[in-house]
Amino acid sequence: MVYIVLDGPDGGGKSTHAALLCEQLTARGRQVLHLREPGSTPVGEALRALLLNPSTGDLLPLTEALLFSAARSELVERVIAPALQRGMVVVAERCFCSTFVYQSLALDRGLDYDWLCDLTRRAHGSTMPDAVFLLDLPVALADARRARRTADRFEARDRAFMERVRAAYLTLARLMPIVQVIDASGEVASVQQDLLWRMQRWG
Amino acid sequence: MVYIVLDGPDGGGKSTHAALLCEQLTARGRQVLHLREPGSTPVGEALRALLLNPSTGDLLPLTEALLFSAARSELVERVIAPALQRGMVVVAERCFCSTFVYQSLALDRGLDYDWLCDLTRRAHGSTMPDAVFLLDLPVALADARRARRTADRFEARDRAFMERVRAAYLTLARLMPIVQVIDASGEVASVQQDLLWRMQRWG
Repeated sequence: MVYIVLDGPDGGGKSTHAALLCEQLTARGRQVLHLREPGSTPVGEALRALLLNPSTGDLLPLTEALLFSAARSELVERVIAPALQRGMVVVAERCFCSTFVYQSLALDRGLDYDWLCDLTRRAHGSTMPDAVFLLDLPVALADARRARRTADRFEARDRAFMERVRAAYLTLARLMPIVQVIDASGEVASVQQDLLWRMQRWG
Repeated sequence: MVYIVLDGPDGGGKSTHAALLCEQLTARGRQVLHLREPGSTPVGEALRALLLNPSTGDLLPLTEALLFSAARSELVERVIAPALQRGMVVVAERCFCSTFVYQSLALDRGLDYDWLCDLTRRAHGSTMPDAVFLLDLPVALADARRARRTADRFEARDRAFMERVRAAYLTLARLMPIVQVIDASGEVASVQQDLLWRMQRWG
């Protein structure tokens, strides 16, 4: 019925807010499915382990984009589309926006934007998110929040890269009408209220 | 220096002939690198295990094409291109031709040919095979040869599918000038002689 994504830099609270949003929507009687990218299918979880493991080493941006898109195509076709058909609300952590940021916009020699648009259309078919909420916050704050856990392969980058990631997400929000910027620097409760307020249009 | 591929349906002897060809070329003083797709890089071998394992279950043709292409882009950039620059002969088992056959031409609703051409160009950059030797043989004979080992996920298909695979490879040989059809139904020694004869143009 509705397909919502929480995306944005690490440390923005995607997992926390996705879980809280699912709780709230369930309490209101909705059938909710909480997913994460890459993952939430057998092949997707295997690819997640491979992609996030620091011991995998450097991969080319093209290799990464193809692996994330492979996990995505499987998730959309096998899980998201059937769930929407059964009238469920899908709340996913990350989507193609992450691929645009990490394999294209935040890199010096990233992948071609138009080609990524085409790849994304193929991976999604007619099942696109109704809204992508970009949890945006200053890099210093994201850093402090991330410091509490062990870094995965993408998190183990320097501050300058994280600044480029934040800027790339904000660029994407200007380019793609479905992306809405949410100020994620405040307390969990107030960010959650913002999200719930924006969900009202889907009842 | 030279980048040669042995491709074709299962049971055609790709591994056997690649190993023998490497031996012959080494005996003639060439520096030889024997590779396989998917594989021959850390991420490639992890993807090979995932893709060929029957317990992975059905994957969409798009998912498969993206995973094979991810392994390919890493192999070409990290291993094949540097080896060619060092003057080596690269002998690889399988290449993009397998993707065209198994995820497009041999399927009822396979992937778009032109899109696969574009994806292949991106995965290969300027490093394309100098020749692809298609080891062709009747399905009944391939079946008999394959019967000696345990089937992987792609081999566990029926005879009708194998006929479509053979026909698809032969179609590809008509469409792509670098693909040369080799009659692989004979004895190992005579097929190997045919391969060595065709290698003469690269000294």
